[in-house]
Amino acid sequence: MTRVVVDVMFKPEILDPQGQAIANALPRLGFAGVTGVRQGKRFELELIESSSEAAKDQATRIAETLLANPVIEDFSIRVEE
Amino acid sequence: MTRVVVDVMFKPEILDPQGQAIANALPRLGFAGVTGVRQGKRFELELIESSSEAAKDQATRIAETLLANPVIEDFSIRVEE
Repeated sequence: MTRVVVDVMFKPEILDPQGQAIANALPRLGFAGVTGVRQGKRFELELIESSSEAAKDQATRIAETLLANPVIEDFSIRVEE
Repeated sequence: MTRVVVDVMFKPEILDPQGQAIANALPRLGFAGVTGVRQGKRFELELIESSSEAAKDQATRIAETLLANPVIEDFSIRVEE
């Protein structure tokens, strides 16, 4: 069993209204000094595959197919030990 | 400037219908060997605070107040170098 984490974030040039809403709310809630907020998604996959390398390859294919929209999102993958 | 990443995931005992939907879709898409999927949120905060320790403290207060629902979600915080 291998646990793989896939982080999916909007590409930097894509507007992120959710993150912007949080950034705008922070001063009202008393939090100063936050210059930017981006919100994305995090997926934890449990794979039967025991080889880290093969698990990462499989997770990459899953992310490309299902978890991220490559037109507007970037993803990064790491195997959790 | 310090970049802090806040990961927010449902607590293990909370059902995660989005993750479940992905887990159910994977076999239909030709991906075998995935035994579990959990979906959560990832936030990237840019803080003016330059001390890692103080930035982490501030991000913790922001996460508790705004980013996570402590009844059903856990969060973890790390400073990106």
